[in-house]
Amino acid sequence: MSFNTFGHMFRVTTFGESHGPAIGCVVDGCPPGIPLTEADIQPYLDKRRPGQSRFTTQRQEPDAVRIISGVFTDERTAVQVTTGTPIALLIDNVDQRSKDYSAIKDSYRPGHAGYAYDVKYGVHDYRGGGRASARETAMRVAAGAVARKIVPGLNVRGALIQMGSHKIDRARWSWDEVGNNPFFCPDAQAAKAWEVELDAVRKRGSSVGAVIEIVAEGVPAGLGSPVYGKLDGDLAGALMGVNAVKGVEIGAGFAAAELSGEQNADEMRMGNDGKPRFLSNNAGGVLGGISTGQAVIARFAVKPTSSILTPRKSVDRYGSEVDVMTKGRHDPCVGIRAVPIGEAMVACVIADHYLRQRGQVGESPAWPFKKSGG
Amino acid sequence: MSFNTFGHMFRVTTFGESHGPAIGCVVDGCPPGIPLTEADIQPYLDKRRPGQSRFTTQRQEPDAVRIISGVFTDERTAVQVTTGTPIALLIDNVDQRSKDYSAIKDSYRPGHAGYAYDVKYGVHDYRGGGRASARETAMRVAAGAVARKIVPGLNVRGALIQMGSHKIDRARWSWDEVGNNPFFCPDAQAAKAWEVELDAVRKRGSSVGAVIEIVAEGVPAGLGSPVYGKLDGDLAGALMGVNAVKGVEIGAGFAAAELSGEQNADEMRMGNDGKPRFLSNNAGGVLGGISTGQAVIARFAVKPTSSILTPRKSVDRYGSEVDVMTKGRHDPCVGIRAVPIGEAMVACVIADHYLRQRGQVGESPAWPFKKSGG
Amino acid sequence: MSFNTFGHMFRVTTFGESHGPAIGCVVDGCPPGIPLTEADIQPYLDKRRPGQSRFTTQRQEPDAVRIISGVFTDERTAVQVTTGTPIALLIDNVDQRSKDYSAIKDSYRPGHAGYAYDVKYGVHDYRGGGRASARETAMRVAAGAVARKIVPGLNVRGALIQMGSHKIDRARWSWDEVGNNPFFCPDAQAAKAWEVELDAVRKRGSSVGAVIEIVAEGVPAGLGSPVYGKLDGDLAGALMGVNAVKGVEIGAGFAAAELSGEQNADEMRMGNDGKPRFLSNNAGGVLGGISTGQAVIARFAVKPTSSILTPRKSVDRYGSEVDVMTKGRHDPCVGIRAVPIGEAMVACVIADHYLRQRGQVGESPAWPFKKSGG
Amino acid sequence: MSFNTFGHMFRVTTFGESHGPAIGCVVDGCPPGIPLTEADIQPYLDKRRPGQSRFTTQRQEPDAVRIISGVFTDERTAVQVTTGTPIALLIDNVDQRSKDYSAIKDSYRPGHAGYAYDVKYGVHDYRGGGRASARETAMRVAAGAVARKIVPGLNVRGALIQMGSHKIDRARWSWDEVGNNPFFCPDAQAAKAWEVELDAVRKRGSSVGAVIEIVAEGVPAGLGSPVYGKLDGDLAGALMGVNAVKGVEIGAGFAAAELSGEQNADEMRMGNDGKPRFLSNNAGGVLGGISTGQAVIARFAVKPTSSILTPRKSVDRYGSEVDVMTKGRHDPCVGIRAVPIGEAMVACVIADHYLRQRGQVGESPAWPFKKSGG
Repeated sequence: MSFNTFGHMFRVTTFGESHGPAIGCVVDGCPPGIPLTEADIQPYLDKRRPGQSRFTTQRQEPDAVRIISGVFTDERTAVQVTTGTPIALLIDNVDQRSKDYSAIKDSYRPGHAGYAYDVKYGVHDYRGGGRASARETAMRVAAGAVARKIVPGLNVRGALIQMGSHKIDRARWSWDEVGNNPFFCPDAQAAKAWEVELDAVRKRGSSVGAVIEIVAEGVPAGLGSPVYGKLDGDLAGALMGVNAVKGVEIGAGFAAAELSGEQNADEMRMGNDGKPRFLSNNAGGVLGGISTGQAVIARFAVKPTSSILTPRKSVDRYGSEVDVMTKGRHDPCVGIRAVPIGEAMVACVIADHYLRQRGQVGESPAWPFKKSGG
Repeated sequence: MSFNTFGHMFRVTTFGESHGPAIGCVVDGCPPGIPLTEADIQPYLDKRRPGQSRFTTQRQEPDAVRIISGVFTDERTAVQVTTGTPIALLIDNVDQRSKDYSAIKDSYRPGHAGYAYDVKYGVHDYRGGGRASARETAMRVAAGAVARKIVPGLNVRGALIQMGSHKIDRARWSWDEVGNNPFFCPDAQAAKAWEVELDAVRKRGSSVGAVIEIVAEGVPAGLGSPVYGKLDGDLAGALMGVNAVKGVEIGAGFAAAELSGEQNADEMRMGNDGKPRFLSNNAGGVLGGISTGQAVIARFAVKPTSSILTPRKSVDRYGSEVDVMTKGRHDPCVGIRAVPIGEAMVACVIADHYLRQRGQVGESPAWPFKKSGG
Repeated sequence: MSFNTFGHMFRVTTFGESHGPAIGCVVDGCPPGIPLTEADIQPYLDKRRPGQSRFTTQRQEPDAVRIISGVFTDERTAVQVTTGTPIALLIDNVDQRSKDYSAIKDSYRPGHAGYAYDVKYGVHDYRGGGRASARETAMRVAAGAVARKIVPGLNVRGALIQMGSHKIDRARWSWDEVGNNPFFCPDAQAAKAWEVELDAVRKRGSSVGAVIEIVAEGVPAGLGSPVYGKLDGDLAGALMGVNAVKGVEIGAGFAAAELSGEQNADEMRMGNDGKPRFLSNNAGGVLGGISTGQAVIARFAVKPTSSILTPRKSVDRYGSEVDVMTKGRHDPCVGIRAVPIGEAMVACVIADHYLRQRGQVGESPAWPFKKSGG
Repeated sequence: MSFNTFGHMFRVTTFGESHGPAIGCVVDGCPPGIPLTEADIQPYLDKRRPGQSRFTTQRQEPDAVRIISGVFTDERTAVQVTTGTPIALLIDNVDQRSKDYSAIKDSYRPGHAGYAYDVKYGVHDYRGGGRASARETAMRVAAGAVARKIVPGLNVRGALIQMGSHKIDRARWSWDEVGNNPFFCPDAQAAKAWEVELDAVRKRGSSVGAVIEIVAEGVPAGLGSPVYGKLDGDLAGALMGVNAVKGVEIGAGFAAAELSGEQNADEMRMGNDGKPRFLSNNAGGVLGGISTGQAVIARFAVKPTSSILTPRKSVDRYGSEVDVMTKGRHDPCVGIRAVPIGEAMVACVIADHYLRQRGQVGESPAWPFKKSGG
């Protein structure tokens, strides 16, 4: 992970700003021979796409992805597959409205990256946040769709489990509900309450934060590269690197601090499949930075967007104090759209480590081991 | 960050297991001409060193560091300075007691990395946790001591702010207190209560988790490499990669989810120093993945150690169910020693980004900008 | 350098195949504030572009480059500059003629990469060489044009110094001649002879190899990262990685093996500019992997293309023996077009090391040093 | 390859200077379960070790390597194997004679790296060349010994094929002869002549260059990561990065420039083993940057050492012109000891690509392919 490239063996390089002609990415290191068409990627982009309910920004982007390279349709099979060469994906920007930004181009919006970009680079494409725009995350989602196809049996799903101070009731968790409401909420009852709540937030031009949980099932045991490429370390880096994220947990997370050693350590018995069965999952599927075969569970907190309709104290790039108010498109809870993004980042990290493990170790050891000798 | 190398421009590669002859690291990419002797590093190691109070493991390790390469004493000045070539640091292991482990060598301790290492590699040095031992973190601390010398004016400090369910009162925070108790606790009153509490934990052979806060002051604005080398992303990856860490927050962290956009965004005014003055620091000093010049604030949760004296259900490497009990040395709150480790990781990340920013941008822009023309 | 990304601080990721919709690259890590438009890049692409004389392939590609991201036109100055974010460059493929390849899709052309790609990936886009096509090098040239703008005073020029067995007379070397003939030949007399020679080669459907020399002037002293990122090592890796290159030399190169130590070591005196003046340049501007301030001189050999009109013995992907003959477009000396490619690779390596040196060392030491004390 | 770390999946980080207490390396990413003891490494170090004949420097270093980490002796098998964690190797420096250098500490020896290091870093450990010393290459050799154990069936051998202007007669090439003379010369007759020649060179305090050829047999087809991690590109970078190397060739090398396309392209027929049989090997075993299964052949030129007994014109670090003469130990042909170093670099590159290929592709495709359908 460095600059604009993510991953080691499964490597994603993204580019593009909110108001340029296009955004895109290059997925490098993908194994060859994997069937891949735009139809494998587009559904995930559609989940992230803005403008799908009144609870997300009204920017209208079809976000239609095109595969530019790295695939080939073998005449013999008529199936388009990856070739092992870099897969470039491109999405044209179509709703750019750059006229909106001239009034505020010199003023920093509190909580936005404008000041930070300016003081770092001395130049900043202020239109729609430029490179700091959430628009960049579309390419993370696209890359994640490719990543999902690499690890056999991998299933990465996410859900919004807290909006503002309102948490779901985990006893009511149903993955089937996640697609039934505009919040990716697994608790149907909570989703109804959130609808009322978020309408109020939206109408007063305010915003709220959220907490998202990502669950990855089918993660092979043995993934992770201690001690500086641990699976949990890489997941935390990947998720904290998503726009607006301020906290990341694995498994029991911060709650682990309040547990005793007896409560926290996940006991083991043998499962019917010949693998260990853990009696709990406080570890979130990771021990010593290595996956154990349990579900990998990550949680992250998204701050409320700073694009609110109330004037805020700020400064401009010339050092004058100003008051700034966001006009135009407004996203009362950016955490909603962070669900597919979080899924994508987790999928990318796992795919990367799957290839790294295969590289270093080849076929993973057959556990349990046989006693030699007898 | 990959495998056993950490960082991009300031690169740390560590090696060594708990019960091998030595542990060590190679610090590569350090600027030349920086005065550096063992005396710059040893004090930080002494802070992390076990056996200093009854609240940490009784392993007795002097942890005396030796600089093997990368420094040179110029006869002209008689000062030992870095040369720009790799700095190797070595610490001999002196208290290894490998006899303790034969009884449990085939059984996995719940909550430990033994099973994960075995299922990943098919071979595992079980003595004292091998590579997964907290002993490895000594080299992080040593590297962090070098990192601290790279960024002029940088001051990285940490404190234990929660032990088990007992939090400090932030109103009583005093950095001066941190050195006055065996917990790195900034709240003298809390420290007294913790002493009683932890004695009880220790006596019943149990353990508790903890939360640590790291505050980095003097971080220049402009550090961080969006979008996959963001400062907060790299901090999260670095801290989550420390043994036993299960959660990381920047600034307001998970609490940000409960704030409104009005509350969360840190308003700005001009400071007397010609730089922006933020009226709050929910961002934890990072916007858009780039430092703003505010203090960088990171928090992380450490789980209770699984080395407890109560038998736990487990399996062995041959697939048999067993009960496991840790004997011997015992650390009732490993979070305590995580304070200097967390400081070190934050220092390493900041030093790395300091060099990366200098590489890409050279001298950072002089803010505020001048209006051109008139 | 790894997979499809080149460089460390100045990072270039390329993508695209000969017969896909487009080829492109992402230039990451470029300093901000550098004026950059398509007009800075296009001239270099035009030099590499095929179809400009009867001595290069007749594929007709305008190779019009578009900047997709990473630049911004500041209203205040009306100058388009780099922003420090990734610069994506795109070139549409317009002359793809995929019909040509169906007859030979299963047979490997000797000397081409088809067999190697197939045995590596199990799938290969055979149309026009796919990813192995020289078309890919257009993006190297584009990236090199950006690299040239990073190092103040850098001047990277190349010339063809040998075609087949015909070498130039170095005494007649004139940089001004390089643009006056279709061979980038610095020796006007040799160019005339080559014209006759290459016409004959072309007419008999054959091909010849070539040797190219790249001279980089204005390289600051001190660039290079010993011991695994040496400037000469990186140059050699970069040049050998260009299609069809089989040998690389720095300075005296293989001839150095025949020199005595007295002849080879470049003696030093003081120059009028207060820097050392070297009395020769057998080192090619690099000592110990670090630039000395002399011109950096690299030379590389390009093999004759295997796309010839004589049938050759080969096999197909099903293990049958076949005879293969290339039809269609034909490039009698691919070494010609390697001149701008070689320049680009050298520029990229130097730009990368310029940023790396600035990162690690900051401002380079002011040599000569002052005696302290007195 | 960057700074002091070499490789991507098989990663080698080296450290240490000529006159420090020790030199060492960390081999990271090695597969687990590989039997490894010092006895696997020491013989290669012994080949490189100075002082073994009158034709190499008389520095007396036992170069006894110690494995510090990354191995474990399983009680069940009593075999010491790699664990998958970083393997640290250490060699103490025992013959340091730092007294020799005080007279020349301020003067640069022409052809040495002293000036380059000084102008880069502003500080330089001049004792014995510091980090630029050939002593550093001992760790390359040690790492190469580990690399050799990773790729099943790999056999990497090298030979000196030219000393000064005296080339071997390739018709007399015998690998068995390589160990029978102090030059690693495969031509017994040439070796005899060289002995006389080099004695004369040595006696007049001069030095000569050399050319080394490395042949790697048993390299699986399919290794190499186009387009910026090509096998030949990485080999060239690795070999050019060895001290004193000025040129690198793959296969026909520079001679390829003089061949016609008909001569150069290696024709293919089917071999008895069901794999292609190439009728020649001008490619040196690499096409399109990917190994073909043929022997990989690399050649490199080593310049004559600049440590000669004739005074040379130079300058000192304060900008004064001086004459410099090397005293003390003297290596009339450093190319001799470059043979085991070149072997090691080739082994490291191949091991790295073996793991990378396994990571990206898993089990390589079974060639020839079956026609689907029928």
